[in-house]
Amino acid sequence: MAVFSIHGDIIWTEEPGSFRSVNNGYLTIEDEKIVSVSSSAPSCRIVDAEDCLVIPGLSDLHLHAPQYAFCGLYMDEELLDWLNNHTFPEEGKYADAEYADRAYSKLVRDLLRGPDTRVSVFGTIHTDTTLCLMQKLEEAGFSGFAGKVNMDRNSPDFLTEKTEQSLAETERFVREAGKFRNMKPVITPRFIPSCSDRLMEGLSEIIRKYDLPVQSHLDENLSEIEWVKELCPYSSSYADAYDRFGMLSSKSIMAHCVYLNDEEIELMRKRGSFIAHSPSSNANLSSGIAPIRKYLDAGLKIGLSSDVSGGSSLSMFRIIQDAISVSKLLWRLKEGSGRALSFAEAFYLASKAGGEFFGKTGSFEPGYDADVVILDDSADSTILRPELSVEERLEYYVYAHAEKSVKAKFIKGRKVFSEE
Amino acid sequence: MAVFSIHGDIIWTEEPGSFRSVNNGYLTIEDEKIVSVSSSAPSCRIVDAEDCLVIPGLSDLHLHAPQYAFCGLYMDEELLDWLNNHTFPEEGKYADAEYADRAYSKLVRDLLRGPDTRVSVFGTIHTDTTLCLMQKLEEAGFSGFAGKVNMDRNSPDFLTEKTEQSLAETERFVREAGKFRNMKPVITPRFIPSCSDRLMEGLSEIIRKYDLPVQSHLDENLSEIEWVKELCPYSSSYADAYDRFGMLSSKSIMAHCVYLNDEEIELMRKRGSFIAHSPSSNANLSSGIAPIRKYLDAGLKIGLSSDVSGGSSLSMFRIIQDAISVSKLLWRLKEGSGRALSFAEAFYLASKAGGEFFGKTGSFEPGYDADVVILDDSADSTILRPELSVEERLEYYVYAHAEKSVKAKFIKGRKVFSEE
Repeated sequence: MAVFSIHGDIIWTEEPGSFRSVNNGYLTIEDEKIVSVSSSAPSCRIVDAEDCLVIPGLSDLHLHAPQYAFCGLYMDEELLDWLNNHTFPEEGKYADAEYADRAYSKLVRDLLRGPDTRVSVFGTIHTDTTLCLMQKLEEAGFSGFAGKVNMDRNSPDFLTEKTEQSLAETERFVREAGKFRNMKPVITPRFIPSCSDRLMEGLSEIIRKYDLPVQSHLDENLSEIEWVKELCPYSSSYADAYDRFGMLSSKSIMAHCVYLNDEEIELMRKRGSFIAHSPSSNANLSSGIAPIRKYLDAGLKIGLSSDVSGGSSLSMFRIIQDAISVSKLLWRLKEGSGRALSFAEAFYLASKAGGEFFGKTGSFEPGYDADVVILDDSADSTILRPELSVEERLEYYVYAHAEKSVKAKFIKGRKVFSEE
Repeated sequence: MAVFSIHGDIIWTEEPGSFRSVNNGYLTIEDEKIVSVSSSAPSCRIVDAEDCLVIPGLSDLHLHAPQYAFCGLYMDEELLDWLNNHTFPEEGKYADAEYADRAYSKLVRDLLRGPDTRVSVFGTIHTDTTLCLMQKLEEAGFSGFAGKVNMDRNSPDFLTEKTEQSLAETERFVREAGKFRNMKPVITPRFIPSCSDRLMEGLSEIIRKYDLPVQSHLDENLSEIEWVKELCPYSSSYADAYDRFGMLSSKSIMAHCVYLNDEEIELMRKRGSFIAHSPSSNANLSSGIAPIRKYLDAGLKIGLSSDVSGGSSLSMFRIIQDAISVSKLLWRLKEGSGRALSFAEAFYLASKAGGEFFGKTGSFEPGYDADVVILDDSADSTILRPELSVEERLEYYVYAHAEKSVKAKFIKGRKVFSEE
């Protein structure tokens, strides 16, 4: 591949709390990587994004592909009822290759139109349709992880695997997923309540054997936490129940973490595991508000996630809005929660901080992967636009156009979507 | 005008907590009024909305027209800073007829594309441009109220009126607004901190003289409430400070009401005043969460409001989402807050309950004003759509397409917007 440069209004975050931007600048890319941001034109092919915003691709650290079909439905129930009444029956349908093909095609099409360049996705227990999901993501140009889900207890019959079969299918999934270049397999025990100790031990061996990442759920809902206490009387905490099986590491994503206690915070910090903060889902399912300021102060690694379909929108722009808004409510409602997230902080979480799980993405520093999103904010914008800074224009876009198609998107230097 | 009938999937709420619907039904309208909902075709002209959702128009009880230009901007500040740093400087620009014309044109254009049929709007202190706003709303077909704002203290020079002039301009505004058929004037003291007692007394006389409604702000933010205590040592509460001037009645809208105490709840109930519940704004400006379940149980009248631009979206669909979501968070975070709002309850607040302020609108009962919105949910919908009930389709639409144009809109039987 060659060198090229994107000409537009370039904005990104290298550290929490402050934007960097170059108005009317040039973002130069060589092969898969960012080379530089400059204010004068380099001598290479120029991609015209004049008067458009040019931002790093965002990372969605946690979403359930099979739940997208009911994204925005059944929001009147709490987690455990919602799982039994709606989520599990829908996930059961993904044994059917034709149904999965249709559903996953729509998900990938809609993801492609949005600002995400990296994703870490749950499939279902079904190996073949989860491979079909990976193939669709790979073909669309996405980079990231997808996992065949493991469940061998406390689940409806049609979603309960035999332990040995679950492990054998997981190894088959991992081996067959080896054919993809950018989408990689991730071990995906649904959560402690649906995975027996024997299953967790087996998964732990597979993780070591193939050196794999892990994704699961942690401390989402108070009833769930009580249940885990009953199920794991030997564990000192929910996080410890994963750690006993070697499932907390710098290659782990734990979704939600609404209620980490001090021991769990220290464990997550020591292991360098990532929190997938899911503000929209945590509100929709009445789970609560994760104390992100406290976790940031404790040095935990945090990215944002839509958690479709606990979250009712696929858009990471909407998740940025919600992350800010619930942090303000927590500050107001719970003494000692610390100050709310600023727009720049939330953007940093959605881009560079969450991106760290995938390597170097989500920033425009030299050597970062060239994951770039172009936003056309010229039409249907506020009448104030001519007076706004690049940062203000980005804030406006994130609030006003969360559900709108991006203008174009590049992943690792390759154009994967363009509005035209 | 003649009789006609809209053929589609019709859904509405007559009481909190439950929908009524007629799949593949006929909503018959004569002149300005709803006649009936039936499942067989009447013998009159049929408007084809087959396979579309047909819902009552929604009411936005509180929005600031001059703030729409920065809707979704400057969300990192709390109320009083946000007023001084952004809101007041922007409102100052509405002395300029040309600027106001441009800004209000965009607001009315965007309102017209959304699901609202009734609005109660704040202008600025400027009489002429507020009349221009009313004219645009009237011409677009809207029905409702708009107010010239009153401010004679604690405000920047360019937004501070002399008391007598404020009163004289208010009377001029009321008289000139008499020329409109559907948009009516509403007395609009901004809030206690920006209105002297003498101004409030004068406004009170104008209210009695012309038998006018009132709109203002009440108990939005803790610092504001402290300030009002200092300003009104003679009042037993913030609500009492309005009531002393006869400004609480069944023709009053008080926006926010995040922190009503028991005395204020009782006063609001006795007076039959409306609360404009602004969940999005109350989160964005770190104000808090209004305890809506408690207010409903106490028998208060409540509608929903965008509160643009404390609220970052004009869409009442988004406000429905936020009303539900913050009520879930309050239930979780504050003991004794009572159960969260269901989707049907929030829709009821946005339609019939808020609509009551304007008369009979927001329901499809015979004799109600024919305020009707048609939503096309056939394209770009979930793959589950063929299996969904009308109620589920509406929930999906409200979550997935909050910012999308409606297909068509009727106010008092007259088509005011159509996508084609």
